[in-house]
Amino acid sequence: MNIESKKIVYADNAATTPVLPEVVSAMTPCFETLWGNPSSLHDMGQKAKELLDDARARIAGILGCESRELYFTSCGTESDNWAIKGAALASKGRKRIVTSKIEHPAVLNTCRTLEKQGFEVIYVGVNSNGIVNMDELKAAVNNDTLLVAVMMANNEIGTIQPIKEIAEIAHANGALMFTDAVQAVGSIPVNVKELGVDMLSFSGHKIGAPKGVGALYVKKGVRLANLIDGGGQENGHRGGTENIPYIVGLAKALEISMERLPDNERIIRMRDRLINELLKIPYTNLNGDPTERLPGNVNVSFEFIEGESLLLWLNYNGIAASTGSACSSKSLDPSHVLLATGLPIEKAHGSLRFSLSHSNTDEDVDLILKVVPEVVGNLRKMSPIFPG
Amino acid sequence: MNIESKKIVYADNAATTPVLPEVVSAMTPCFETLWGNPSSLHDMGQKAKELLDDARARIAGILGCESRELYFTSCGTESDNWAIKGAALASKGRKRIVTSKIEHPAVLNTCRTLEKQGFEVIYVGVNSNGIVNMDELKAAVNNDTLLVAVMMANNEIGTIQPIKEIAEIAHANGALMFTDAVQAVGSIPVNVKELGVDMLSFSGHKIGAPKGVGALYVKKGVRLANLIDGGGQENGHRGGTENIPYIVGLAKALEISMERLPDNERIIRMRDRLINELLKIPYTNLNGDPTERLPGNVNVSFEFIEGESLLLWLNYNGIAASTGSACSSKSLDPSHVLLATGLPIEKAHGSLRFSLSHSNTDEDVDLILKVVPEVVGNLRKMSPIFPG
Repeated sequence: MNIESKKIVYADNAATTPVLPEVVSAMTPCFETLWGNPSSLHDMGQKAKELLDDARARIAGILGCESRELYFTSCGTESDNWAIKGAALASKGRKRIVTSKIEHPAVLNTCRTLEKQGFEVIYVGVNSNGIVNMDELKAAVNNDTLLVAVMMANNEIGTIQPIKEIAEIAHANGALMFTDAVQAVGSIPVNVKELGVDMLSFSGHKIGAPKGVGALYVKKGVRLANLIDGGGQENGHRGGTENIPYIVGLAKALEISMERLPDNERIIRMRDRLINELLKIPYTNLNGDPTERLPGNVNVSFEFIEGESLLLWLNYNGIAASTGSACSSKSLDPSHVLLATGLPIEKAHGSLRFSLSHSNTDEDVDLILKVVPEVVGNLRKMSPIFPG
Repeated sequence: MNIESKKIVYADNAATTPVLPEVVSAMTPCFETLWGNPSSLHDMGQKAKELLDDARARIAGILGCESRELYFTSCGTESDNWAIKGAALASKGRKRIVTSKIEHPAVLNTCRTLEKQGFEVIYVGVNSNGIVNMDELKAAVNNDTLLVAVMMANNEIGTIQPIKEIAEIAHANGALMFTDAVQAVGSIPVNVKELGVDMLSFSGHKIGAPKGVGALYVKKGVRLANLIDGGGQENGHRGGTENIPYIVGLAKALEISMERLPDNERIIRMRDRLINELLKIPYTNLNGDPTERLPGNVNVSFEFIEGESLLLWLNYNGIAASTGSACSSKSLDPSHVLLATGLPIEKAHGSLRFSLSHSNTDEDVDLILKVVPEVVGNLRKMSPIFPG
């Protein structure tokens, strides 16, 4: 099959987004003529440094922080690792980290690594809609807690957490507050000062920039150990020659995302139509919260079928979706997020995520709503356990 | 000044290289149509995965390793951090790391971080040409040594180290051998099996790919702790969605570098003409080894002047060069590499590096040889300490 010519309804924007043409245009000069090393003193280097400084200032302006509070990294995962490991290694005495059961593997696996190094990690549960249990969180955060790490919006079920309130609990106990905002930045308004967080991570490839660039906001005064030691880049806190093209692309993508925020109304209408229609299929339930939810996220479970089979049949019909997170696609284990909401394993196995964006249309939703009931029906006919 | 239209003699290829047009062409489809997440099960994802697998196989073939022994990272610095911290954290009991005094800051600063965590680091000296002192190295590597880390070629003075012999010493003592080959790969033949190393790092932006991609070879069976935990990417050893465009660009750049290796004869002729003519300037000495040297590296010290002033005057005359490493350009400290060779501080301050590549011509060398003696002469006239 020639993927380049086939029309595809791409409804997997939470896994990755197309690179925006405006981003490609913004990056092209950085490949062709402005490829200097920003640490070089000659003009080629200084011109690259100007691009770097300009991109940093534009992004900082959007997030509501100062340029010097923004550090570029290679991806959201690196940012997550740096925030958590950096806080743990810089901690003077405190040994506890409080996080949630539904974090991204970049956070959960980082916490597991730290557990092996003698840190204590408390994994707070969520309610059936995927909202962090605040009583459990309050009980977990104590004066031995160095960091509270709760994601702003979940990658699988789109649930948006009360980050500001969680940050207040962290700070009342002298702990730092970190939020993985990889799914939030670009999709909903994010202002680090309003959220009151000490650290916030995000990624380029969820908002129309390429895969391979991310950033970490670190509030001034917060002490983090480096994850990547090296030369003097990023004010001495992240070694490695800066990826100017992608950083320039990240700034452009974020600006475009902000211009497109008003389109969220339309995306939410598409989302809710999809949810409402899919729920008409028998033995189907919605995962996540109906309203505290990312504009483009649809996550439903169809009993008696396997999500992977459904996914492959959708793919055959020109629809790109996901069973959960792309990062876990190689694993046959049921989603840790869905299990944390209390969904039984057999239902978790039949889950499907659509993630819509600005580029999706009502016609895309039409096609999904034409194909999914047919495929679900066919798969259930083949299922030995479907009650009929 | 309009940098895009001005003709510049770029002789700073050790800091970073132009992105090759063939690399841009190879990357473009990855931005425009093949932007899927390689972890996604649908066609968009699987096509990206094919690109990833193909690039990995091509690079592995050139380096003489298996695909599964090659891990993509965001830069040489990340690879260096991972190799060293990963080996240290996976070490069962052994506490010593042996390295050299002239390593890149990505290695030296990583070692300093590990010293704070209870590891012992021995920094072995070099001779006046910058070759690692083998007797000192042999004495330092003992049965408590977990890792020997010596760079293949120095970034400032271009000295090529006897890595195979050093690896044998490491292995005779049950230690792992890592080499930072960022300056070597693409410039001289590098085969991991012939070198006998356990880990080898390299970077894209020194060989015609963009800044923001690197790789680490890890011999099968070698146990490293992850630096970046996350999803299942890179066989579970490096989280973060893979940067497909740059990885595809890295493979293309490495292939082109290999095709151009025969051009080293011409580059060496330019290098040696530059060295021989510059040494005719009074009070000038060559840094590094005359023959065990990267094809494009020229590093000379001019007494009685400051390298930075020289650099800025060269820049004014359209010549891009460096005083040492770009990574250290913000520091006014003299080069740790030059000091390790025994060069007095006052001479180290007057050092200048030209790094030539395939893209340089005899006319570039002509211009450098016209401008440098003039500028050195003028600066010395202004120097209160120049004996005249």
